[in-house]
Amino acid sequence: MSFNPSERTRVKRLPERGVYDTDMIHSVLDEAPICHIGFVADHGPVVIPTIHARVDDTLYLHGSPASAMLRSTPGEQVCITVTILDGLVVARSAFHHSMNYRSVVIFGEPRIVDDPAERMIALEAITNHVIPGRWDESRLPNDKEDRGTKLLAVKLDEASMKMRSGPPGDDDEDMDLDIWAGVVPLTLTAGEPLSAPDLKPGIPVPPSVQNYGV
Amino acid sequence: MSFNPSERTRVKRLPERGVYDTDMIHSVLDEAPICHIGFVADHGPVVIPTIHARVDDTLYLHGSPASAMLRSTPGEQVCITVTILDGLVVARSAFHHSMNYRSVVIFGEPRIVDDPAERMIALEAITNHVIPGRWDESRLPNDKEDRGTKLLAVKLDEASMKMRSGPPGDDDEDMDLDIWAGVVPLTLTAGEPLSAPDLKPGIPVPPSVQNYGV
Repeated sequence: MSFNPSERTRVKRLPERGVYDTDMIHSVLDEAPICHIGFVADHGPVVIPTIHARVDDTLYLHGSPASAMLRSTPGEQVCITVTILDGLVVARSAFHHSMNYRSVVIFGEPRIVDDPAERMIALEAITNHVIPGRWDESRLPNDKEDRGTKLLAVKLDEASMKMRSGPPGDDDEDMDLDIWAGVVPLTLTAGEPLSAPDLKPGIPVPPSVQNYGV
Repeated sequence: MSFNPSERTRVKRLPERGVYDTDMIHSVLDEAPICHIGFVADHGPVVIPTIHARVDDTLYLHGSPASAMLRSTPGEQVCITVTILDGLVVARSAFHHSMNYRSVVIFGEPRIVDDPAERMIALEAITNHVIPGRWDESRLPNDKEDRGTKLLAVKLDEASMKMRSGPPGDDDEDMDLDIWAGVVPLTLTAGEPLSAPDLKPGIPVPPSVQNYGV
C-alpha cells in the first residue's frame, strides 16, 4: 500500500529522498512523540507543537476548547509535519554536512470529533501514543474532563515522507583530505522515571513506564 | 532583556507558561538541532523541518536555491517554531497526562542574505550549530558551493516561548488513588560515532564530534 502523491505531497527537491509507502509513513507517525501543525491565522502562518495519535488512517489531535489552534483549524487547510532526527551527518566539506532524518508531511482539513464512541477511541489513542499501555492504568476521563477536551481528526489522504540515511556524500576530490567523516547517531532517550513528590507511598513504577522506549 | 509580547506572540492559553526572557529564548534556539518553518503556499500552509542557527538577534536558514521554502518565503510572513521535549508527564488521570517541553515561536519576514561577509558568518554559524567547532575542521565552501547555497535571515523581533516543567498536576481528589505519577525525562542522546565506510585510514574522531553533547 502506498500514498498516491498529489501535486503538493510529491517530493520535488531531492526526489530520491521521497517515500510514499503507507507502512513507513505510519511508523514515523507512531514513533514521533509530537507533531508540528501549521495553519493560517488572520496575521499569517502559525506553527504549533502538539501531541498526535494515529488510528488506522486517521490522525487525532486534542486540546482545550480555548486553544487558538483547535478553534481556527476545523474545515480549514492545515499542514501537519512529524520529524524524527536519526543522526548528524559529518562530512569532510562544510557543504555536505547534513542530518539523517525521517519526516512526514500531511495536508488535510480537520473535522471536530463529537461522536462519544469515537471520542473515547481518540482519547485512548492519544494517551497510549504518549506512553503505550497507559490508558488502562489511568483514572479515565469524567464528564467535566470530556467536555474540557476538544478533539480533531485529519484523514490521512494526502501524505508523503522524506528521509535521509547513511554516511555523508562528500565529493570525490575530497576523499583524500585528512578530515574525519561519519555519522553521529541521535536517539530520543528516556531517563530514570522520577516519582511525583506527592506520590502515595508504596506505589511501584508501572509496566507502561518500565517498558517505555525499551 | 526580554521580548515585548506582540498580539501574536503573547501566550494566551495557560499564560503562566509564557516566557519572554531573551536569554531563555536564545538558549532554546541554540540547543535545538532543527526548527519547523511554516509559510503559506498557493494551496495553503506548509510546514518544513530545517536547520537553523542564531547569531545575536538574527536567525539564519539555508538550503538549495531550488527549495520551495527558500523561494517562497523572502519578504513573506513566516512562523518558525523550535521545540525541545524534556519529558513525559505521567499523571494519575488520563486527562492530566502531558509533556514537559520548551518551545519558541518566531514571526518575521525573511530576507535573502547576499553580502559575502554576512554569508560566511551565516554558513559558519549553521555548521557550528549542527556540531559546535566543526567549521574550523572542515573543508570550507568553494565558489560553486557558495553559489549553490541560498541563505535567509529572520530578525528576532517577535518571539515568545512557552514551557512546562515539573511533576504532573493531578486533581486533589485523585491523590489517594493507587496509581503511579511522575515524569519520564527525555533527552536527545548522541550514540557512538560511526566512521564513513570510505574514510581514509588513520584519521581519528575529531574534537567537535568527541565533545558533541558532552
